[in-house]
Amino acid sequence: MPTRNIRIVLTRPIYGGNIGSVCRAMSNMGLSDLVLVAPLATDWEEARKMACWAGDLLDSRKEVATLPEAVADCGWVMGTTSRLGLYRRHSKTPREWAPQILQTAQTATVALVFGPEDNGLSNDDLEICTQLVQIPSRPEYPSLNVAQAVMICAYELYVAAGLFEPACEKSPEASSSLRELMFALWKKTLLDIGFMKEDKAQHMMLGLRRILSRGTLSEDDVRILMGVARQTGWCASEMLRLKERFAQEGAARSGPTTPP
Amino acid sequence: MPTRNIRIVLTRPIYGGNIGSVCRAMSNMGLSDLVLVAPLATDWEEARKMACWAGDLLDSRKEVATLPEAVADCGWVMGTTSRLGLYRRHSKTPREWAPQILQTAQTATVALVFGPEDNGLSNDDLEICTQLVQIPSRPEYPSLNVAQAVMICAYELYVAAGLFEPACEKSPEASSSLRELMFALWKKTLLDIGFMKEDKAQHMMLGLRRILSRGTLSEDDVRILMGVARQTGWCASEMLRLKERFAQEGAARSGPTTPP
Repeated sequence: MPTRNIRIVLTRPIYGGNIGSVCRAMSNMGLSDLVLVAPLATDWEEARKMACWAGDLLDSRKEVATLPEAVADCGWVMGTTSRLGLYRRHSKTPREWAPQILQTAQTATVALVFGPEDNGLSNDDLEICTQLVQIPSRPEYPSLNVAQAVMICAYELYVAAGLFEPACEKSPEASSSLRELMFALWKKTLLDIGFMKEDKAQHMMLGLRRILSRGTLSEDDVRILMGVARQTGWCASEMLRLKERFAQEGAARSGPTTPP
Repeated sequence: MPTRNIRIVLTRPIYGGNIGSVCRAMSNMGLSDLVLVAPLATDWEEARKMACWAGDLLDSRKEVATLPEAVADCGWVMGTTSRLGLYRRHSKTPREWAPQILQTAQTATVALVFGPEDNGLSNDDLEICTQLVQIPSRPEYPSLNVAQAVMICAYELYVAAGLFEPACEKSPEASSSLRELMFALWKKTLLDIGFMKEDKAQHMMLGLRRILSRGTLSEDDVRILMGVARQTGWCASEMLRLKERFAQEGAARSGPTTPP
């Protein structure tokens, strides 16, 4: 697990709900090492509620009195901040840091340190940090909820680690020959139902091709569309058959024919 | 604002705290169009608390009875899901979708639709959706808190829009000639204080150069390091001066010299 040596450190967190949300975010993104520095939170029921299915992570948290204790064994100590004071300028975004964090975490523990809800990390806290992380956000309201900040960092690490297997279509992309079979079937059908005349057919079919060529078209998709065309063609032939029958019966009765 | 036509739709949200967290996340990332479909939440005080400085966004939310109403004017209706059923396979990640969303939002409103906290979007909801979004997460616990899911989507859009100006160093990177002045000063100083002998000087200086060449070294940084070297050099010369004076006074008194 490339995210094994990565520790989340919350300094003086105030709300249990946020601590719980941090646990859930960590579990969603494959992190498990949580250290709280001098937590002020007392609402641990709210923490458990927000942790949801990550209660085990809440239970296995460590608590220490000071930030230096929390990161004593860490190689990198990365402080997150949304304010940019004189000595807070050497910051990079979580996406920029992520590959370096994963590389460093192969041989050392990397701590990601988050400040309290009200004021963020103090200058005393930042003194201990070796790197600064700044999460992109709107300058008019740059301050993220602490659990949201943890989520974005954890998410960037999870994505950078390449652990996510995107959902992929089970049915393969339809081949050109299968697509052409489908378009030929639709052309015949659209002529049969009287949607277009032979002289306009190529033009109309270009429209249909455009609509059906905007993204993936799997073999399953093509089979559905061919099924619709076949059934439509069957309806059209039934209609013609019935029309002829009515015409014959009408001729037999010498009455008017029923309109189609 | 490239994120102007992007709407966040929460279907049947249960907890006010989550609605408030969604408001804050949206405000952090420059979104402002929030629609709630048949909200079940009653704890609006918690919503206001979690919205923090995004209370205006909470106030300006719209509430409608059904999802079709919420998205009636939208060009794209993007459903977020962590489950992958038969018809949920054509999904992409928020990062993959982001550039296309921003492009579509130039001419049409794009809705990002999120399900209720307990079960996510139903198949009835997904029927209305034209695209599916899947947020990368650990398969063992893929289900994100709804406000966290909104945050990741909004964050990816904010980053893709290129709206974030990273903090940059005010002091420019030191030039090679300035760096060489600094190393020359440090070499002289380290010889003066007796840290190294002339024959080992180049080797030791390579070590120092390596330490100081691992990242940015700004003009301000170099000025600090030259100041330290100068002051160290001054100490060393003072020490030598005092040592000589003691030696002279000792010789005058014909007593033993004080050790340095």
